[in-house]
Amino acid sequence: MSFHYQYARPALAVDCVVFGLDEDLQVLLIQRDIPPFEGRWALPGGFVRMDETLDEAAKRELEEETGVTRVYLEQLYTFSELDRDPRERVVSVAYYALVKLSDHRVKAATDAREAAWFSVIDLPKLAFDHDRVLATALARLKGNVTYKPIGFELLPPKFTLSQLQRMYEVILEKELDKRNFRKKVLTMGFLEELDEVEQDVAHRAARLYRFDKKQYHELMKQGFHFEL
Amino acid sequence: MSFHYQYARPALAVDCVVFGLDEDLQVLLIQRDIPPFEGRWALPGGFVRMDETLDEAAKRELEEETGVTRVYLEQLYTFSELDRDPRERVVSVAYYALVKLSDHRVKAATDAREAAWFSVIDLPKLAFDHDRVLATALARLKGNVTYKPIGFELLPPKFTLSQLQRMYEVILEKELDKRNFRKKVLTMGFLEELDEVEQDVAHRAARLYRFDKKQYHELMKQGFHFEL
Repeated sequence: MSFHYQYARPALAVDCVVFGLDEDLQVLLIQRDIPPFEGRWALPGGFVRMDETLDEAAKRELEEETGVTRVYLEQLYTFSELDRDPRERVVSVAYYALVKLSDHRVKAATDAREAAWFSVIDLPKLAFDHDRVLATALARLKGNVTYKPIGFELLPPKFTLSQLQRMYEVILEKELDKRNFRKKVLTMGFLEELDEVEQDVAHRAARLYRFDKKQYHELMKQGFHFEL
Repeated sequence: MSFHYQYARPALAVDCVVFGLDEDLQVLLIQRDIPPFEGRWALPGGFVRMDETLDEAAKRELEEETGVTRVYLEQLYTFSELDRDPRERVVSVAYYALVKLSDHRVKAATDAREAAWFSVIDLPKLAFDHDRVLATALARLKGNVTYKPIGFELLPPKFTLSQLQRMYEVILEKELDKRNFRKKVLTMGFLEELDEVEQDVAHRAARLYRFDKKQYHELMKQGFHFEL
């Protein structure tokens, strides 16, 4: 079977940048099982089908190649350099997501030989222009932190300010001053101080906080400026 | 001539949302000269060629259909609903720009019967899903105002705070309190007060300001929070 068109068309693909938060910031990669770049690590992704939107294609490819499901993928940018794929012209719409790493066990399938998490500061050489796609996603992630609250789906329901600080440090890839961080984050208005402290810890038990759901979602819409 | 592919491919297009700033916020539309939606107003745009990137396609289509050149087009979002074009599946990458209306004389050509500016609050019925594309661009424009300084290419080199306020009012489509606006904008740090006042005005001459170039570009990168 073959399809005929009056004018040449680029192929259309999707690629997914899924960041996982753990002790450091990780990204989900697959090892390609087919040419081009066979054996090379790459972002999960593939060609868009005629009966699915881009959002649906990103979700399907991510699940097929890595087993990762129930992730909120946000559209990032569409990449169209003429030589980004050695086979032929492929335009790719990139998506990105931030997930709690421990919630997502990965399992390679279809065109992927392996699927695994890699620390963003220690990556293998990537296929195609995927280093550029990843850099764009990282910049977006770091930028968003300044304007939106994050962590609702990443932290446990009750957490300490140290846990919250660690999350920001991992995303921003820099250490933050403890006193300054606490002062700033408490003025943001999305935290609720609880009348509880940590249980069963060897060190002095720290105060627990939770997100003020209403304020959190209000600020997700409105944004703010949180320079860290 | 015809092109054959093993798998079906959507056609790939670009659409341009060009906002013009004048007494109110306007958008550049073309009247379609060919089916589908012949005679209907639409965003300038068209199919991507095999030898051009998306950025290049957007620039070319805008120039061909409206005569508008030298505009900084930024990628907005890629639209892929299955039924957005009645002919066949077309995925479209939308771009947007904000220009000083008086700098750009429009002139229809190629697939456009007419090209004209329309106030965003009084639009004709648009072709395809272009009302949705336009709404996405408007939301982005209004959102950006909160995080970035604007106006460098829209206002004259020296301007009054009233002119600056009017620009924000047009984009946000709401009236702003004069005292509040002045207080807020002066604390943002991108304005330089000049030792000059307006010339040849009937009313009491107002103080002139200019953008502090260094601060302006620094804030373009860093962002801030400017709730109006």
